[in-house]
Amino acid sequence: MCELLGMSALHPTDVNHSLALLRPRGGDLGPHADGWGVAFYEGRAAQIFKEPIPAAESRCLAFIAEYDFRSTIVVGHIRRANPPQIGRAAANNHPFSRELGGRSWVFAHNGKLPGIKDDPAFALKRFLPLGETDSEHAFCFLLDRVANAGGDRVLEAGGLRAILRAPVTALSELGELNFLMSDGVHLLAFANTKLHVLPRACMERDCRQRVVLMATTPLTDEQWSPLATGKIHVFAAGQEVP
Amino acid sequence: MCELLGMSALHPTDVNHSLALLRPRGGDLGPHADGWGVAFYEGRAAQIFKEPIPAAESRCLAFIAEYDFRSTIVVGHIRRANPPQIGRAAANNHPFSRELGGRSWVFAHNGKLPGIKDDPAFALKRFLPLGETDSEHAFCFLLDRVANAGGDRVLEAGGLRAILRAPVTALSELGELNFLMSDGVHLLAFANTKLHVLPRACMERDCRQRVVLMATTPLTDEQWSPLATGKIHVFAAGQEVP
Repeated sequence: MCELLGMSALHPTDVNHSLALLRPRGGDLGPHADGWGVAFYEGRAAQIFKEPIPAAESRCLAFIAEYDFRSTIVVGHIRRANPPQIGRAAANNHPFSRELGGRSWVFAHNGKLPGIKDDPAFALKRFLPLGETDSEHAFCFLLDRVANAGGDRVLEAGGLRAILRAPVTALSELGELNFLMSDGVHLLAFANTKLHVLPRACMERDCRQRVVLMATTPLTDEQWSPLATGKIHVFAAGQEVP
Repeated sequence: MCELLGMSALHPTDVNHSLALLRPRGGDLGPHADGWGVAFYEGRAAQIFKEPIPAAESRCLAFIAEYDFRSTIVVGHIRRANPPQIGRAAANNHPFSRELGGRSWVFAHNGKLPGIKDDPAFALKRFLPLGETDSEHAFCFLLDRVANAGGDRVLEAGGLRAILRAPVTALSELGELNFLMSDGVHLLAFANTKLHVLPRACMERDCRQRVVLMATTPLTDEQWSPLATGKIHVFAAGQEVP
């Protein structure tokens, strides 16, 4: 199954440690891992790296994990093709990304949403998939809703939750839906089966730093908490926005 | 000044040789080069790599140039920030990309288009810039026009030319406009000052291969031809579509 990784921080921080933890999962824990991807925000634009090969074998991911990328929001994903007939291709790798309102929006999903492509309730309009996955279809569906609701301006956490509540509930009824989504300011997390969070606070470069990590499966021996299911959680600047 | 690189091929081919030729230009020939980017198509989705650092110093570009990427369309760019106050950021690096009609569209530009952001004739609607460049504004403007003209389906070469003729002419009157643009099937090339092409035909893996390379400045000692200015040239499958 796929693995998700998310990070929201108060100040830009490097993600090398988290990526280094995630990397072996695309080969050791998940021998069928078919690709990996990671999105870093730089202002309102996300930079995305993806490869349709096992993360554990990727020289490119090893290289990125050593590189000095610093960001306040990161969304990463290790993919296991499911169903297997959906091929290895960068277009099928998460995170997916689209521009809306002059911002990058990104999305990564863990789970399956059978029937989404044939159900008129999830018909798409403005955003269409580049690949063949249910996950990208779900992302396009959610982003269509944001666009219709005036997502051309930056929304508040409460506004995002209100717009997404009904479409996320509808998707959640199709199957397993654990996802991370971001507009570059907020990191949204939703789980109907599993997602874990780990808050960290520390001094970093003489600044008070606050970071929250998210992962389908805890990445370390620290005290990760399961995220309450069935609810859209919004994180910003390293903490959950109530 | 910036350097453009384009390739259209009949069969997927690797671009290592061309990238290797382009790479030293972002440091030796262009000491102020501020970033690089390259887009490869894999079916209808483009995979894009960008970095806001000189190409000649990039380990990532060196890595990609050695990697086995194969594609029928490639668009590459070496950037010199101009004006210099527009910062080094991946969002300001070409090629730019947007999804339209379930396909990636990419765009890379050489030149300057002063006044484009303040001129109501170039106001934007559906696609908005993620960065601060005139070039991305021009791309969003052109793609808005394609979307309005029904670009949700794959267009023929003649249809693309007809849709883009007036907006490209308008942009061309603002300043220097040499660009490459692609929908994954066609590679469009336009120059009002300089762009060169080099057709190549050869046998490759027992197949008849046909490739056309495009560059602002010839990359080799071969017989590159200057592209006729003021006209939208459309290439597909390694040759110009009349």
